[in-house]
Amino acid sequence: MSKEAKPESMSLHPLGGGAEVTTEQEPLCVFGTGDMGRSLGQRLLQTGYKVAYGSRRPLGCGPVPQGAQVMSYADAAQLASVVFVCIHREHYGLMEKLSSQLKGKVLVDVSNNPEQNLYPEANAVYLQRLLPGSHVVKAFNTLSAWALQNGPSDACRQVYVCGNSAEAKQAVAEVATKMGLTVLDRGSLSASQELEDFPLQLFPEWRLPLQIAVGLTAFFFFYVLIRDVIYSYVDQGKDISFRIMVSLANKVFPIVSLIMLSLCYLPGVIAAFLQLYRGTKYRRFPDWLDRWMLCRKQLGLLALALAFLHVLYTLIIPIRYYVRFKSWEYVITQVKENQTSKFDTTVAWRSDSYLSVGILGFGLYVLLGITSLPSVSNALSWREFSYVQSKLGHVTLFLCTLHTYLYGWDRFLRPSTYKWYTPPGFMLSLVVPSVVLVLKVLLLVPCVDRSVTRIRRGWERTQPDEEKTLLT
Amino acid sequence: MSKEAKPESMSLHPLGGGAEVTTEQEPLCVFGTGDMGRSLGQRLLQTGYKVAYGSRRPLGCGPVPQGAQVMSYADAAQLASVVFVCIHREHYGLMEKLSSQLKGKVLVDVSNNPEQNLYPEANAVYLQRLLPGSHVVKAFNTLSAWALQNGPSDACRQVYVCGNSAEAKQAVAEVATKMGLTVLDRGSLSASQELEDFPLQLFPEWRLPLQIAVGLTAFFFFYVLIRDVIYSYVDQGKDISFRIMVSLANKVFPIVSLIMLSLCYLPGVIAAFLQLYRGTKYRRFPDWLDRWMLCRKQLGLLALALAFLHVLYTLIIPIRYYVRFKSWEYVITQVKENQTSKFDTTVAWRSDSYLSVGILGFGLYVLLGITSLPSVSNALSWREFSYVQSKLGHVTLFLCTLHTYLYGWDRFLRPSTYKWYTPPGFMLSLVVPSVVLVLKVLLLVPCVDRSVTRIRRGWERTQPDEEKTLLT
Amino acid sequence: MSKEAKPESMSLHPLGGGAEVTTEQEPLCVFGTGDMGRSLGQRLLQTGYKVAYGSRRPLGCGPVPQGAQVMSYADAAQLASVVFVCIHREHYGLMEKLSSQLKGKVLVDVSNNPEQNLYPEANAVYLQRLLPGSHVVKAFNTLSAWALQNGPSDACRQVYVCGNSAEAKQAVAEVATKMGLTVLDRGSLSASQELEDFPLQLFPEWRLPLQIAVGLTAFFFFYVLIRDVIYSYVDQGKDISFRIMVSLANKVFPIVSLIMLSLCYLPGVIAAFLQLYRGTKYRRFPDWLDRWMLCRKQLGLLALALAFLHVLYTLIIPIRYYVRFKSWEYVITQVKENQTSKFDTTVAWRSDSYLSVGILGFGLYVLLGITSLPSVSNALSWREFSYVQSKLGHVTLFLCTLHTYLYGWDRFLRPSTYKWYTPPGFMLSLVVPSVVLVLKVLLLVPCVDRSVTRIRRGWERTQPDEEKTLLT
Repeated sequence: MSKEAKPESMSLHPLGGGAEVTTEQEPLCVFGTGDMGRSLGQRLLQTGYKVAYGSRRPLGCGPVPQGAQVMSYADAAQLASVVFVCIHREHYGLMEKLSSQLKGKVLVDVSNNPEQNLYPEANAVYLQRLLPGSHVVKAFNTLSAWALQNGPSDACRQVYVCGNSAEAKQAVAEVATKMGLTVLDRGSLSASQELEDFPLQLFPEWRLPLQIAVGLTAFFFFYVLIRDVIYSYVDQGKDISFRIMVSLANKVFPIVSLIMLSLCYLPGVIAAFLQLYRGTKYRRFPDWLDRWMLCRKQLGLLALALAFLHVLYTLIIPIRYYVRFKSWEYVITQVKENQTSKFDTTVAWRSDSYLSVGILGFGLYVLLGITSLPSVSNALSWREFSYVQSKLGHVTLFLCTLHTYLYGWDRFLRPSTYKWYTPPGFMLSLVVPSVVLVLKVLLLVPCVDRSVTRIRRGWERTQPDEEKTLLT
Repeated sequence: MSKEAKPESMSLHPLGGGAEVTTEQEPLCVFGTGDMGRSLGQRLLQTGYKVAYGSRRPLGCGPVPQGAQVMSYADAAQLASVVFVCIHREHYGLMEKLSSQLKGKVLVDVSNNPEQNLYPEANAVYLQRLLPGSHVVKAFNTLSAWALQNGPSDACRQVYVCGNSAEAKQAVAEVATKMGLTVLDRGSLSASQELEDFPLQLFPEWRLPLQIAVGLTAFFFFYVLIRDVIYSYVDQGKDISFRIMVSLANKVFPIVSLIMLSLCYLPGVIAAFLQLYRGTKYRRFPDWLDRWMLCRKQLGLLALALAFLHVLYTLIIPIRYYVRFKSWEYVITQVKENQTSKFDTTVAWRSDSYLSVGILGFGLYVLLGITSLPSVSNALSWREFSYVQSKLGHVTLFLCTLHTYLYGWDRFLRPSTYKWYTPPGFMLSLVVPSVVLVLKVLLLVPCVDRSVTRIRRGWERTQPDEEKTLLT
Repeated sequence: MSKEAKPESMSLHPLGGGAEVTTEQEPLCVFGTGDMGRSLGQRLLQTGYKVAYGSRRPLGCGPVPQGAQVMSYADAAQLASVVFVCIHREHYGLMEKLSSQLKGKVLVDVSNNPEQNLYPEANAVYLQRLLPGSHVVKAFNTLSAWALQNGPSDACRQVYVCGNSAEAKQAVAEVATKMGLTVLDRGSLSASQELEDFPLQLFPEWRLPLQIAVGLTAFFFFYVLIRDVIYSYVDQGKDISFRIMVSLANKVFPIVSLIMLSLCYLPGVIAAFLQLYRGTKYRRFPDWLDRWMLCRKQLGLLALALAFLHVLYTLIIPIRYYVRFKSWEYVITQVKENQTSKFDTTVAWRSDSYLSVGILGFGLYVLLGITSLPSVSNALSWREFSYVQSKLGHVTLFLCTLHTYLYGWDRFLRPSTYKWYTPPGFMLSLVVPSVVLVLKVLLLVPCVDRSVTRIRRGWERTQPDEEKTLLT
């Protein structure tokens, strides 16, 4: 250890191989003492670096982390070869005056914009244009000041870096690695627009599944509204509009949930048949199928949320005023008219089976949801994950579909079901899941299964002698 | 970079820059073969280090990890420049005799105490006092033997290091980094007391929210007890004490849950108005507000737990003996007295709306809870997280408040509601949420919203020309 | 490695000590352009390495990541000293022809087999046998192509490495570390069988708990079936087989759930008494106890799943046709026979208490489940985790046991309960939890507690003067 202080070795290792040596020599410079500047500086100090803040008002800039120096921009820039620019884009003009002091230095642009498309060019590109003699690197902007202060964890551990100078990027990567972060190189500075848009994203991968959910919900809401409330009003003159709040919701939610669950498993089945038809797995799927497959998780989680609501709506049924009233009315009528109804074992079987299958289906559904949590799915091996999501997933779909068939029971054959010649909503909801299950059963037929497995392991029908590479 | 090829630099850097070289040269030494010693040694071996154990009874010390040597303390100390002291504090006296062998060496104190405040000084400080010639570094004590053996993950990945010698800390940091851990420097050895208290902490950030929850629950329990059970006994001579178990619980839990949910969002609203009033975001909030804001997550999760209990208590209502008895009694009375009640659509609307709004509110509430899981919130961008927690959070608060207003309905105006001139509990629970929602609506008024946004982006009313630094 | 100290060694050891230097000099080579080859190459490029693909058909091999070169195997092998072999085992024969080009090179075998025990020897061992002049290292096979492409997170961050050459392993470890992964050395190449079996594992630690759950469920199902359905048929000639779907399920699930929850806490109690009896904690537990303790988490989570189903089955009771029919029948009979039943406060107390205790028990149970999520338990200190899992766990067990006792109530004494002289299922389920709770109470007696604590801190009855090492 003591030998480390040897003069000749120190100066020779500015960034590579012995970053800790740097600590002794040259501080890092942080421009700006706002939230981001303070958090970044504090973290750098904790990691063992010396930090010099550059500020327009070195004396009146507010509190900086203990152990850091504050000085003017020009003085701070002189001290370090790496400068973190934690200043709003609007004040980048200030930097232009420092172009001589910043010449040849690595400038790390950590800035974000409050909104997308506020400026014609990315902040980092703008900074590079202002200071052509410096090496601008875009980095750290996807980390929040909060994450920097509290120590990064899990997903927050990734730092995306882009810039035109490989050496400058390497210098920044060294610092980030020392801070316990994982560095991902995203190429040249032209990628900085993408990096700056990243923290402004709002659930991009949820957009399509949400649109599908909203669209289906709206469609089935009006469908059921017409068949139930409006039909009742037109046909019998009865106003049952109060049923919108619970009864209709409890019809629409399970319908949409079942359809969306089956939409999760449909693309997998289509893909298998496509591979069978093509006889290879090396040709790309059409774009729409790729996009569809990428949003299966979101489709499934939305379906689970709707199933959860369906469970709650079902469980409160006996508490509803309407249900209690009807129940009392029924008993009173029975007593008054001296009727006796007989207990029907078949109805009991059907009613209990339908409830029991629904509960088991929902139980598995919740299990699928839990294994979708990042920390749980990360702890599973690939085989375990696919076992749960594929095998248990299809069993869930089967149980939920069976639940709906049992719910329907003899209503499929009763003419009174088809008001205004339309089938009830739950029948419509059975179409896609039934198709998926039938196709899945076809794929499980031994000879088909064998072909698919062979193709997925790299076998090709048309090029039997070719090299086959590893699947995973 | 290329200069690294210089011949003399290689051999001079035993730990820096080329830690793998060390493997060939010098083992690390572990004193003590207990759980911690064994786990640490095993992990060091897996990482590629050679390990020599020091033991008082080298021959009878029990199993050590395969590949490690066991020898006397003195022999082991001779071999290595870094010694991990995995011995109970009570036996530190043994170390004093080794002071000559340990002179100049780095001693890593990994010890923890079974309780806080057991000794007047931290273990590491005590060790340094016993061996003034060695460089004591406190480290690794926040990792459990279990985590070391099974490989660290996520939060367990952080190693806090403190010590008086920067070089000694650097040497320990190198080893920790090689083990896949993230190092955070906590300064000089005087910080070791804090590090030793860390693993003994028991939910410090939950204490205040729990106290609030318990206090509110106790208050409302007695309030409702007096208004329901005691009033009924005094006024009508009826003993309805059995209602404590379910009915009272199901009044107290939702009341406290709603108040605590609104307490989550109150500090944010207060902070916004404070910033508006001050015209800057650069002045610190008062301490009480800071503390309050830091425990919002815990407040919200406790409120969610109580809401979950409320849901369960509500759903079992129809199973209760009391409810079934009253229902039967009602029907029998109706039949006997030949009464007929008429179906009231307004009541049906109100009852269904109140249930439906409650279910939707609870659904969103669960969503907020899920996004609070560390692995989920880490996977969200800052904007996504704040969208969920702020926007959806306020919608949740609105739905839950509406649920309570709908529950109250015309009871607000009925004089019989105000037993002993006191309002029922649910009315009291509406005060804070209503205030929060009104203030939040005020903040959403365009001109106010614009001012707040401007201030949060760094604008200051009093210093219009000053430098503004990056928010995040 | 030892050559690293030599001046010319820098250019020869691109991977040791200064991995970033490599970027400038020597590419890494990837054989095979399948899923794994592409993903690995892309990640290496992102990390800053140059990548050369070796392919049998350099011109027709399909898309490779941008920035990578594609050439023949022989040419690619020439360029790099580290070669990632991303080819199916069946095509390893191709490699034999390249033995001269691959001589002295580090070959990283990343392959997995589709099934266990497909081949007599591990893929990596086979590769080493084919190419005795190369240094085969098994690594990266536990990462999926998916995880490599999307950046590793949490558990996916660990790379297991084994091989016969320490230098070759070091070279691979350097690359993995640069990629943000944590390296664990698993020893010589003979460990590769174990590493190759790893991704094919299917919930090995869940097998025993699942067998217990299925065994108990089957036993209690038939037990309850005989006592309920068959007894009713034999004794009264009534067919109540429809009760299988809900009533029987709702008896079996809570019974098995309670037993499994108590099986979670039984081994801890046994271990404490064993330590008390032996007077030391340094002797190993018998194997069956070790295995039992290792699957406590899985036992508990399965018990929670069954408790969850029990809750759902209970909550749908009032919706069941059978229950509604019986309820109406009861009222109608009462009216017709002009009976009046009196409200029984004791029954109300018991019914409400039993429900309320069950709800609180389930609430705590869910809390235990949430703290078992990897990301949550990682965020807890050791003391916090053991507080929740041990203290709250025993409270949960107590509440659930009390719930069952309250459910039984006076049925314990009623002779009609014991059909065919057998106790009902819920009584059987009370045996183990009652034993666990009694033993736990014994351990909480101050003098016993003190002894256990002392032993767990390292005190030994038989060797009072010996050295005691650190617990954790």
